[in-house]
Amino acid sequence: MLSGGLDSATVLAAARAKGRRCYTLSLDYGQRHRAELAAAQVLSRQLGAIEHRVMVLDYGQLGGSALTDPELAIPEERAVGIPVTYVPARNTVMLAIALGWAEILEASEIYIGVNAVDYSGYPDCRPVFVSAFQALAEVATKAGIEGHAVQIMAPLMHLTKAQIVLRGLALGVDYRETVSCYQANDLGEACGRCDACYFRREGFRQAGSADMTRYQGAIANR
Amino acid sequence: MLSGGLDSATVLAAARAKGRRCYTLSLDYGQRHRAELAAAQVLSRQLGAIEHRVMVLDYGQLGGSALTDPELAIPEERAVGIPVTYVPARNTVMLAIALGWAEILEASEIYIGVNAVDYSGYPDCRPVFVSAFQALAEVATKAGIEGHAVQIMAPLMHLTKAQIVLRGLALGVDYRETVSCYQANDLGEACGRCDACYFRREGFRQAGSADMTRYQGAIANR
Repeated sequence: MLSGGLDSATVLAAARAKGRRCYTLSLDYGQRHRAELAAAQVLSRQLGAIEHRVMVLDYGQLGGSALTDPELAIPEERAVGIPVTYVPARNTVMLAIALGWAEILEASEIYIGVNAVDYSGYPDCRPVFVSAFQALAEVATKAGIEGHAVQIMAPLMHLTKAQIVLRGLALGVDYRETVSCYQANDLGEACGRCDACYFRREGFRQAGSADMTRYQGAIANR
Repeated sequence: MLSGGLDSATVLAAARAKGRRCYTLSLDYGQRHRAELAAAQVLSRQLGAIEHRVMVLDYGQLGGSALTDPELAIPEERAVGIPVTYVPARNTVMLAIALGWAEILEASEIYIGVNAVDYSGYPDCRPVFVSAFQALAEVATKAGIEGHAVQIMAPLMHLTKAQIVLRGLALGVDYRETVSCYQANDLGEACGRCDACYFRREGFRQAGSADMTRYQGAIANR
């Protein structure tokens, strides 16, 4: 599962480094930061995926999240509790679609870049969520019934953002191509102010690495 | 969750009879029996749903099922094991989308018409599947974290098709409007030969009811 952000790009690189033959899946769910979809395509190619697919789901029609509702502003300070950028059940939907494709491909693993250390507090980024989805996969599919359910791999779960950055740099991930910002412009340039930008910048800083993010003009000159 | 078939229409009627305010959700996943989508809309209105939504997901591009791949024929005899009409992870995807909408609506229950008695042996129609999805919902959502996770209701799970029919007739479901057939034509008329037609016809027969299915011309005259 490749959103086009820093985490999922790192996961793809890690899976490739283990010798896995990878198929990448992005979800066009009406996110305002559509530049991440273009980034996912570039990263898939750079990192040697066999095939990249984009599934389109009009999640925006349901509303309820600042990531899909243009009427809701993206917060530019850290929230207490679960922020308005939470998209209800989004990772459940994405994993469900990945589960279907994995079964068709007869894939043995699904890689997801969720992380429960430097993150925004979304419920569907936690270890209990991944375990519960694994248990579901065991009973929901033909492969599960046959005793070879796909394994949900979340190799970044317990890493800090800085550790993720260091791992990705060691694997040669070109982070300039990744888009994390919730309100990236069409060129994939970041706002520098939202939650996603905050965690990403802190990650580079704590890793002792230059911030490879491409920021929107005004921000870059700050 | 309202496919437009016999089971989900019965579930909607049952929820309405309990006094529930219902929102209905259909998934346009590239199924060849698209007539069920039109049926879902009619049934929603007939049974007093507040709102009906159709989410579109191009599941067909993934292939792997006779329900979405025009190259694969719908079997017209009973299969051993899981038949080719199985759509990998379809109910997982549908429940995941319903979970997102339920969270936005602050709904307390999701109703699904799965049934593990007179069915085709799909893994995602069994009680263990529903239990596993319930466990997922507890950890995947904001509502779950707050201790009021949506409840997955599968009131038909242990009923025979005949019991389902009897319940629906008692609740006033107009089964002529429901579409079960995997290769229904655009008018919603059934082939009379696929698995879905088989279980439906047996249901009416064992219920001692007239078969209210609208069959395609040649079949009706058999």
